[in-house]
Amino acid sequence: MAFDRLIEKIAEMQNPTVAGLDPKLAYIPEYIKTEAFEKYGKTLEGAAEALWLYNKGLIDALCDVVPAVKPQAAYYEMYGWQGVRTLEKTIKYAQEKGLFVITDAKRNDIGATMEAYAAAHLGVTDIDGEKAEAFGADALTVNGYLGTDGIKPVINTAVNGDKGMFVLVKTSNPSSGELQNLELAGEETIYLHMGKLCEQWGEEIMGKYGYSGVGAVVGATYPEQLKELRTELPHTFFLVPGYGAQGGTADDIAGAFDKNGLGAVVNSSRGIMCAWQKEGCDGSAYAEAAKNEALKMKKLLLDVAGEIRLP
Amino acid sequence: MAFDRLIEKIAEMQNPTVAGLDPKLAYIPEYIKTEAFEKYGKTLEGAAEALWLYNKGLIDALCDVVPAVKPQAAYYEMYGWQGVRTLEKTIKYAQEKGLFVITDAKRNDIGATMEAYAAAHLGVTDIDGEKAEAFGADALTVNGYLGTDGIKPVINTAVNGDKGMFVLVKTSNPSSGELQNLELAGEETIYLHMGKLCEQWGEEIMGKYGYSGVGAVVGATYPEQLKELRTELPHTFFLVPGYGAQGGTADDIAGAFDKNGLGAVVNSSRGIMCAWQKEGCDGSAYAEAAKNEALKMKKLLLDVAGEIRLP
Repeated sequence: MAFDRLIEKIAEMQNPTVAGLDPKLAYIPEYIKTEAFEKYGKTLEGAAEALWLYNKGLIDALCDVVPAVKPQAAYYEMYGWQGVRTLEKTIKYAQEKGLFVITDAKRNDIGATMEAYAAAHLGVTDIDGEKAEAFGADALTVNGYLGTDGIKPVINTAVNGDKGMFVLVKTSNPSSGELQNLELAGEETIYLHMGKLCEQWGEEIMGKYGYSGVGAVVGATYPEQLKELRTELPHTFFLVPGYGAQGGTADDIAGAFDKNGLGAVVNSSRGIMCAWQKEGCDGSAYAEAAKNEALKMKKLLLDVAGEIRLP
Repeated sequence: MAFDRLIEKIAEMQNPTVAGLDPKLAYIPEYIKTEAFEKYGKTLEGAAEALWLYNKGLIDALCDVVPAVKPQAAYYEMYGWQGVRTLEKTIKYAQEKGLFVITDAKRNDIGATMEAYAAAHLGVTDIDGEKAEAFGADALTVNGYLGTDGIKPVINTAVNGDKGMFVLVKTSNPSSGELQNLELAGEETIYLHMGKLCEQWGEEIMGKYGYSGVGAVVGATYPEQLKELRTELPHTFFLVPGYGAQGGTADDIAGAFDKNGLGAVVNSSRGIMCAWQKEGCDGSAYAEAAKNEALKMKKLLLDVAGEIRLP
């Protein structure tokens, strides 16, 4: 099961960090952009090439210190199909370097359409009898607003292909409570209800370390809810966004980990990607700066997670 | 405002139908696939070419009888970046033929990331000072589970660029009630609450015919809720999936229309795309069969909507 692989990598590296790959042009050093624009001009193709070169450097620097990366689909789609091609190249390259890849695409739909998304991002596509892999990540973030019809096709693909998913439960943004914190007539919140659906959906795809292949997105910015959900959802692995730039600290995340220091992988995107800007480095040191920032984050997280042990 | 354009086209054509463009290979006539596979093999590229040829024929046949088309992103993504390139070509070609294009991608995220999705699908992307359009549809479906942070960036793009959006409110699938029908402690359902958020979000982007640029997805398969939502959400234009293959009939949809026969655009995907298979036509007649089916649907919808008039 995919999250068994993720858990083993987290334990092996003693690091529950996932590095976000959200490559905005503004984050990319000038020399990389110059190289790309000289080849292809200031076009979608040129931008996509800059993204690719930048990501490649990040992956080379990070693959020894983090177990996973999380490309955010939006930052590739904004550069058209050319950007989407960079997403595909990035996923494949990261996997070659041994990284677990979570595509953050928050996809959602029903039935045959959700099957198509699952095939696109986690599975294989059938082309009149020939099989091809479109994007082939290890896990995908999904939005459960449509209920089981939108999740079942991803579970089927995950079971057959050693893949996993993270369902949005309690997101990190300020307005997340507008819907997610509303109380249902039965006196539980929507996010808790969604979390319990994850536990239920996960029964079909249990891993050997007690966590299922149906994870949950729970923001670092809501520490009380993180703690509540860790208790209520013992078999659900968390993807925790909101660390760093969004204001979440290592202390805020403490409640996300179980007694073995497992149970969560914590994302940092801008913090790692833009470390070179924050530290006023020369652009050519961007990958080194990213690695140093990832090591700093690892230390802070281990301080609250404790030594990470396989159960 | 984009939905003013949509409404005018609906009135001009006397047809509230949107044709879904969900081009699975299984729906595509053999002679088109043969042509594409001879050029590019049974590869993602070959499949993407078949999708493109098929779509082009559908658009040529439908552009005189329907006001809008709705490509479903999943069916392009499953064929990799090559499929995503076909999505882009399809959108541009449909617009050249005068069609209003709704990209059904149900995107959702927050802040800068949602801005990236809005730029990708509705706006323009900045490439170090140069502007490029990535996909450039007229409207986008979005999922509001993350609250205002996930909608505001789309509204900003819509206001600046004459675009619109449809927020998932009550979806057409069997399990949609698992979350959407739950009752909140205040005694309204989640879908109604989400609908009321649409009314609120729409205040910033009101059109001249009484409908805002923030529409809602409401399934044909739940006629009672359609009627309820039409009454509760007087400024929210509906995108109605679930007609035909999913079981919704014209009678089920009657409640979605206002007294002018406006208020909703009704989607049919498989019904129109696969008409040639259902009617046992030769593959070469697929576009003609699609057109005939669209005309049949127009008649059935007008029977319940009445004559369509601009207010």
